[in-house]
Amino acid sequence: MKKILIIGAGRSASSLIKYLLDKSKEENLEIRVADISIENAKKLLQNHPNGVAIALDIFNIEERKKEIIGSDIVISMLPARFHMEVARDCVEFGKHLVTASYISDELMALDEEVKAKNLVFMNEIGLDPGIDHMSAMQVIDRISDKGGKIILFESFTGGLVAPQSDTNLWHYKFTWNPRNVVVAGQGGVAKFIQEGKYKYIPYNKLFRRTEFLEIDDYGRFEALANRDSLKYRDIYGLEHVKTLYRGTIRRVGFSRAWNIFVQLGMPDDSYIIEGSENMSYREFTNSFLPYKPHDSVELKLRHCLKIDQDDVIWDKLLELDIFNDNKIIGLKDATPAQILQKILTEKWTLAEDEKDMIVMYHKFGYELDGEKKQIESNMVVIGDDQTYTAMAKTVGLPVAIATLKILNGEIKTPGVQLPITKEIYEPILKELQSYGVNFKEKKVKYLGYNPFNLGA
Amino acid sequence: MKKILIIGAGRSASSLIKYLLDKSKEENLEIRVADISIENAKKLLQNHPNGVAIALDIFNIEERKKEIIGSDIVISMLPARFHMEVARDCVEFGKHLVTASYISDELMALDEEVKAKNLVFMNEIGLDPGIDHMSAMQVIDRISDKGGKIILFESFTGGLVAPQSDTNLWHYKFTWNPRNVVVAGQGGVAKFIQEGKYKYIPYNKLFRRTEFLEIDDYGRFEALANRDSLKYRDIYGLEHVKTLYRGTIRRVGFSRAWNIFVQLGMPDDSYIIEGSENMSYREFTNSFLPYKPHDSVELKLRHCLKIDQDDVIWDKLLELDIFNDNKIIGLKDATPAQILQKILTEKWTLAEDEKDMIVMYHKFGYELDGEKKQIESNMVVIGDDQTYTAMAKTVGLPVAIATLKILNGEIKTPGVQLPITKEIYEPILKELQSYGVNFKEKKVKYLGYNPFNLGA
Repeated sequence: MKKILIIGAGRSASSLIKYLLDKSKEENLEIRVADISIENAKKLLQNHPNGVAIALDIFNIEERKKEIIGSDIVISMLPARFHMEVARDCVEFGKHLVTASYISDELMALDEEVKAKNLVFMNEIGLDPGIDHMSAMQVIDRISDKGGKIILFESFTGGLVAPQSDTNLWHYKFTWNPRNVVVAGQGGVAKFIQEGKYKYIPYNKLFRRTEFLEIDDYGRFEALANRDSLKYRDIYGLEHVKTLYRGTIRRVGFSRAWNIFVQLGMPDDSYIIEGSENMSYREFTNSFLPYKPHDSVELKLRHCLKIDQDDVIWDKLLELDIFNDNKIIGLKDATPAQILQKILTEKWTLAEDEKDMIVMYHKFGYELDGEKKQIESNMVVIGDDQTYTAMAKTVGLPVAIATLKILNGEIKTPGVQLPITKEIYEPILKELQSYGVNFKEKKVKYLGYNPFNLGA
Repeated sequence: MKKILIIGAGRSASSLIKYLLDKSKEENLEIRVADISIENAKKLLQNHPNGVAIALDIFNIEERKKEIIGSDIVISMLPARFHMEVARDCVEFGKHLVTASYISDELMALDEEVKAKNLVFMNEIGLDPGIDHMSAMQVIDRISDKGGKIILFESFTGGLVAPQSDTNLWHYKFTWNPRNVVVAGQGGVAKFIQEGKYKYIPYNKLFRRTEFLEIDDYGRFEALANRDSLKYRDIYGLEHVKTLYRGTIRRVGFSRAWNIFVQLGMPDDSYIIEGSENMSYREFTNSFLPYKPHDSVELKLRHCLKIDQDDVIWDKLLELDIFNDNKIIGLKDATPAQILQKILTEKWTLAEDEKDMIVMYHKFGYELDGEKKQIESNMVVIGDDQTYTAMAKTVGLPVAIATLKILNGEIKTPGVQLPITKEIYEPILKELQSYGVNFKEKKVKYLGYNPFNLGA
C-alpha cells in the first residue's frame, strides 16, 4: 500500500481527502490524515477502512519526521508559514511534496536539492493559485502554438455565495477566511498595465475603480484590482502583453458599499480601539466620526461620506446593524478590523443549508495572422453543502489529482514548481471536468481599451 | 575656557551657534562645531575668535571620543538616529548632553547611569518638541497651583511661510524638511479624545477633518490632527482631561487641496513608479487615473475626485504644473512621494529674500471654583533671513539657553529628561522673550465641544 500523508485537516481538506479515499481501493492507498486535533482528521475520514487519523503537532520534530519517513508522498495543507518544516523533512527523507500555497523564496531555495533527489515539489495547485494558472496556461499555450501573440490577459476570481443562498443586500457571505476579506487590498498599492501604461490604485480608491464582467446564466459581477498583477508577466511568459490585470470578483454594488468602511477607517488592523470590549456597535461607528453631540451618528456618517438619503448603500449599512446601541462588541483590546469582522460575521455567515460559489473569469486578447482576437473563458462551481464547499472542491481536487499523478509517475519532472506546463495542466484540467470543475470558452470581438488607437 | 561641543552644523544650528558665540566672551566659552563637512561648521562660525570648526565623522570612534572627552558639555544636532553614539560617550566620559529630539527608549535606558554620574541629559528642547512642552506646562502648572483642574488641552504648531512672502495659492512653502511634509500623517491612525470620547481618523480622511483657529493680526489657520495626542496625557499629568488634541497648522485651504494628492495616492513612499526617470509630470499624474484614451488627464482627474469646474483647488493643481507634458521627472526608480516632493519643491521653495514663520497655539480649558474657564495662548515668530529662520531660532535658542544654564549649574537635576519642570521652563521661556519668542495669552469663554451637555 502506498501511503499518502496529509498534514492539516482544515476546511479546505474535505474534498481532497474524499477524492483520495474514493480512489484508495483501486489505487491501493493508505490515506494518513494528521492534524493537531485528531477529531478534525477523524471527521473527514469518516471511518473509511483505508484512512488513518493521526494527532500531530508539527513542532514535535520526532513525531513529524516519523510520519514523513513512513509516507510515500506528503501534502501540506498547513498555513503557508508552516510549510518549510515539512519541506525540509521531505528533502531529507526523499519524499514528494504537494501544497496549494505560493512558492516562497525559502522554498525555492531548496530547488537544487529537490532536483538532485529527483523529487517533485508541486505548489500553487489549489484554486487561486492553482486552477487559475492551469486554465490560463492552457489557452495561452494553445494560442502561442498557433503562432498567436498574447496582447491582453485579465483574470478574475471570487469566492461568493451561490445564487440560491444570496439573501442579503451585499450579495455576499463569508465562504472562507473572513479576516482576508476584511483586510483585502491593504499592504501595498494595486499595480497593473493597460495598453502599455502602468496604473497604480491606492487602497482608498481600490473599491471605486472596479471593472464589470458578465457571465452567462449568472449575470453581472464586479472586480477590484489585486496587488500582484505584474508578477504573472514572467511566470506566464507574457513579455509582449499590453494589458495585464488580475482582480477579485464580487457581486455588483459590494465595493461601493465596502468603500464606506474604507473611508471610515474600519478595516484597519494596526491599532487597538480603546475600551472595545464594552463598546456598542453604535459607539464603534461613532469613534470614526467627528464629535458633535447635537447630531446623530447617522447624520454625521451620511454627511461625512456624502451619502444621499435614498442611496442603497445606506440600507446595506442598516442591514449590518452598525448603528445599534444595544449590541456590545465584547472583544477585549480589539483592532477596528477585528471588530468589523465580528459585526460582519453575524450577518454574513452561511446558514446550514446554504451554498457557496466560486467564479473564475479570464480574458485573452491576441494577434494572429495580423488580426486581433479575443477569447473569454469562465468557470462557475457551486458547493454541494457546507463540508464539500465550492472552495474545498476547487482547492482540494487539483491537489488530490496532482498527488496521485506524482505518486503514479505520470507527473515526474523534478523540482520546486507550479502547474504551468502541459504535462501537468492537461491531465489535471481534464480530470477536473468530471468533477464539475470546467471552463466555458467563447470567442468575442477584440476591443482592448483603445479600439480607436487614440493617444492615452 | 569652558568648551561646548556642537555636533552637526545643519540648518537648525545657525541661531544656536550665534547665541553661544554672542555669549562666548562674557561667559568665557569656546564653541567647537563639528560636522562631517567642515565648511558647514565654518560658515556658521564666521571666523569668530571663540569658535573652532572641526571636521568630524561621528562613526570615526577615536575622533569622536577625543572631541567629547575634551568638551564640558555636548549638543547633538545630528539626526535623531545618531544620538546614541554620542550619548554613550557622554555617559562614559561624564559629560552633559543636550538634544532637540524625542527621548528614545534606548536613550531612556541610560537614565540610571546618567543620574549616578550626576549628569543632565536634556532632550526635546527645540520647538516641537521643546517650546510646546515649556509653554504648555507653564500654563498648566499655574492653573494647577491655583487649584484648577485641566479638562481640555489642545496644541497646534506649524512651520509656514511668513505673510510678506506668501505668494502662492497654497499659502505654503517648504521651510524645513520637505519629505516630512509629503509623508505627513502616514504610518498610523490619528487618535485623540474629545469630551471623553476617543476619536480615530484614518489617513484618507485626515486632511478633511481639520479644525480652524484664529490668531490676532495673522488671521485664520487650519490644523490637522497629529498621530500622538494621547501620549501627552501622562507627560503633562492630564489624567482628568476630557479633550486632548494636538495638530499641525496650515493656512486655510491647504488640506482640502492636499487631500487630492492623498486620494490619488501620490504621497506613497512604499513602491517605485516604473520608468519614473523619463516620465513627464502629466504621465505621472495619469498613472493614478483610469486608462481612458478618449478623455484628457484633466477631465479624468476632475471626474475621479469630483472637482467642480470653478473649484479653487483646481487652480492650486494647475499652479504646480502637474499636467505639464514637457517637464520630465528625471528621478530614476523614484517613489510617488519622491516625485511629488520634486514637483512641489519647484514651486514651494523660498526665494532668497523670503522669510518663514512659526506659529504655535494652545487652548487650555479648566475648572476652578466650580466655574469653567479657558485660556488661549499663541506664539508667532518670523525668520530674520534664510540663515536665521524662524525654525532655526525656535529650535536652536532653547537648546542654546538650556546648554548654558546646565553648564553654569542653573539647571542641575540629573537624569535623561525633557523640559517640563519649573526649574527649566521658567528661566528659558523668560530669556526667549528677549529674542522675540514669546506667547500672547488671553482669557476666553469656555465652550468645549458640548456646551449644552448633550449626549454624544
